[in-house]
Amino acid sequence: MIYRFAGPVIRPSAVWRRYSTQVVGDSTLKKLLQSNAHVGKEVTVNGWVRSVRKLKNVAFADVADGTTEKSLMVVMKPDQGKLLSTGACISITGSLEPSKGKGQDLELVASEGETAINVLGESSPEYPFQKKYHSPEFLRSIPQFRWKGARNSSVLRYRSYAQSQFAKYFEQNDYTMVNSPIVTSSDCEGAGETFSINPPQFFGEKGANLTVSSQLHLEVFAASLTRVWNMAPAFRAEESDTNRHLSEFWMVEAELAFTRSLEDVLAVAEGMIRAANPLGNERAMNNILSSIRDEEKRNVVKARWESLVNNGEPWARITYTEAVKLIQESGEKLKPIEWGQDLASEHEKYLAGKVFKGPVFVTDYPKSIKPFYMKPSGDGTVACFDLLVPELGELIGGSLREDNYDNLLQAMKDADMNIQDLDWYLDLRKFGSFPHGGFGMGFERFVCYICGVENIRDAIGFPRWAGSCVC
Amino acid sequence: MIYRFAGPVIRPSAVWRRYSTQVVGDSTLKKLLQSNAHVGKEVTVNGWVRSVRKLKNVAFADVADGTTEKSLMVVMKPDQGKLLSTGACISITGSLEPSKGKGQDLELVASEGETAINVLGESSPEYPFQKKYHSPEFLRSIPQFRWKGARNSSVLRYRSYAQSQFAKYFEQNDYTMVNSPIVTSSDCEGAGETFSINPPQFFGEKGANLTVSSQLHLEVFAASLTRVWNMAPAFRAEESDTNRHLSEFWMVEAELAFTRSLEDVLAVAEGMIRAANPLGNERAMNNILSSIRDEEKRNVVKARWESLVNNGEPWARITYTEAVKLIQESGEKLKPIEWGQDLASEHEKYLAGKVFKGPVFVTDYPKSIKPFYMKPSGDGTVACFDLLVPELGELIGGSLREDNYDNLLQAMKDADMNIQDLDWYLDLRKFGSFPHGGFGMGFERFVCYICGVENIRDAIGFPRWAGSCVC
Repeated sequence: MIYRFAGPVIRPSAVWRRYSTQVVGDSTLKKLLQSNAHVGKEVTVNGWVRSVRKLKNVAFADVADGTTEKSLMVVMKPDQGKLLSTGACISITGSLEPSKGKGQDLELVASEGETAINVLGESSPEYPFQKKYHSPEFLRSIPQFRWKGARNSSVLRYRSYAQSQFAKYFEQNDYTMVNSPIVTSSDCEGAGETFSINPPQFFGEKGANLTVSSQLHLEVFAASLTRVWNMAPAFRAEESDTNRHLSEFWMVEAELAFTRSLEDVLAVAEGMIRAANPLGNERAMNNILSSIRDEEKRNVVKARWESLVNNGEPWARITYTEAVKLIQESGEKLKPIEWGQDLASEHEKYLAGKVFKGPVFVTDYPKSIKPFYMKPSGDGTVACFDLLVPELGELIGGSLREDNYDNLLQAMKDADMNIQDLDWYLDLRKFGSFPHGGFGMGFERFVCYICGVENIRDAIGFPRWAGSCVC
Repeated sequence: MIYRFAGPVIRPSAVWRRYSTQVVGDSTLKKLLQSNAHVGKEVTVNGWVRSVRKLKNVAFADVADGTTEKSLMVVMKPDQGKLLSTGACISITGSLEPSKGKGQDLELVASEGETAINVLGESSPEYPFQKKYHSPEFLRSIPQFRWKGARNSSVLRYRSYAQSQFAKYFEQNDYTMVNSPIVTSSDCEGAGETFSINPPQFFGEKGANLTVSSQLHLEVFAASLTRVWNMAPAFRAEESDTNRHLSEFWMVEAELAFTRSLEDVLAVAEGMIRAANPLGNERAMNNILSSIRDEEKRNVVKARWESLVNNGEPWARITYTEAVKLIQESGEKLKPIEWGQDLASEHEKYLAGKVFKGPVFVTDYPKSIKPFYMKPSGDGTVACFDLLVPELGELIGGSLREDNYDNLLQAMKDADMNIQDLDWYLDLRKFGSFPHGGFGMGFERFVCYICGVENIRDAIGFPRWAGSCVC
């Protein structure tokens, strides 16, 4: 084949010969194992050794490439296994056969001879990620290797699956995916402490911060495109040293025009989460379950997924006022609460975990504890919601937005805000104002809940928190 | 229906009555216009008035909601049109009928009576985005309204389409989508000036910067998952005041393990771009073309798409050495170049625009002008590539990565780098090293090229550059 070229003819071989000496492989474990098409055939597999067992007459290696939850057992002659150690990167040629061992359907029987097993990258006993129990704290100290294990890599694969499902859900419902800005000169009031940027006046006299929420900018997009969603990093400069806070995290946010019903917003939030339920996809389900060794924990996670299905019924709804009453009358040892105070994490967990035993939308919180932009719903409350889930508490927060110019301006004055800085936001209500609402979900909290990850630092590739940004 | 609830039974009506007073509408223009299912029926349409024409016996309004490239012509009685002005947000009930006018298939004939047209948000003559020519500079000064026009909103819809197509392409090829960190303590050497973060020691003594490229972290993900891709914001603190630089932009990056052939990396880059070619999807094509008024410009854009199809043939490849020779022997008035110097933008445009008249991969640049991590390909060159396209120049850059520990360490010493800061990166070559490569594409440059946008500031929702971060 000759490439289109107006000058002298160049054939690919002339260009490529020099480094096309060896294509190591062109297939992934996912491709090889997803059908029986390769059984009985000679294949070349690339991956990393998770464990190796060397016996007198045979050696076994567990090899994974992270494209699937499955690893592949390689059966070798003892001398072929000699060079292998945990962590080594290898390329093996052999025959894919029905497995004689337990725990897997197929195994790879290495071909005979020296060239069948090719060590691409050696490992050594100093390799920090050995085949034994490592604490999550230790694994976080080796960010370059921590995702190689079965458990952790399953979390990354689920992240990818969830993002893809969110995208499909929103696409089917006529949403445009937008990219809101990370650097901003507008603070989304009340969302927390911000990081500012150096050089200080690079963007102008006002300076600039890392975004704490995309909401205000999403409203601009919604004013043009009606239905928008966004997945973007957000930042909070808080010292919180908890298992559910990060300084850098990803948020999934949606904003929809032309609704005066909070129920519409709830339906979108619910639909989005349902779309990413692992129960809807066998691969996603197996990806997570196969990575959890403890059966009891597997059952806890499966029960969560079932509770999100909720037999196909819409999730429970309750107002804040009713929630406070339930807590007050619970007879449980809970922190006392009066109407007007925010729910504490233990209240949230009680409501979702003990009362509803599944997801529950708590709506209509007092105006005084919510940001300026929420639309009043009467009696000192605003048309907002938090989605609570058992054991975790708040997963999503959202509201209808105040679309009346005078009311919004008054709310901003009442909140003692800098009105000039947000004139662009007010303008959305001045010209062509539209009834709308939306919500935001911390993606890593969601990943924790679905995958049964206990510390949010283990639900994101490179977690950042106060004092920690190791690479 | 009764919601699952362990306490007193709550019926939805009790919770919702208070703000479910009016659901304005539940359909988008996209849904209404994508089939003939609604023709002859009464529908309610929500959107913003792009223009209005009031005659003696009839009034017309062009209404759009941004979910599709199409707007809808509304035909009204003169008194119904009285309240309408450009920019107003309206909800109209009427009958969807085959259009008698030119330029659209369907029109909405408003029902009779006062309630048929409901002004949700008024506009006024002070509305800054009127139905007339506004310069891109002016539109950038009204970020809250600039995306409402047909041209600009088509760019946002294409961004969404392209992201969705990238995701599908990578998913089909067993890639995991990952999210690399934005805040980092590691500089991806040579990628440009960085922004640092305040409070200065929040993350530790070293401080932290906004990422300039996700590549180094992507290599960690590839060491666990084999094939990964990423779409994330990147930041450059450069004062460049050009039509192709932003301080905040989005990058699409991919990293693939188990290749020693740069050709594999090129194939992925090419496949990804082909997947988002508007020619592959009638809606994507019409979205862009219908927003370009000038026929000549429409043809330029279509020709670009055709050049990316390239009759199904792989795109042209040429080495840097051959490229330099072509420039030297071109007989054109170009900036002189000697082997060893980087290609200037005018050289890139000459090669792609005049010689190849389409996309061309230029490979094997001199090692001296490329970053430390690229793998040598012989004769002082490295196994890297830039993808050049006519009129724009560089669109993608990528390479094979040095996977030998000793060689990488030496390259870092030669580049006078802080080796301790990148020990985690070196570790990838110390334990289980793997042959790999990857690339990065500036997403907004790609959007400019595909949509025919001349200034990169008009290819992103809220552009940031030196001196500008207005909201």
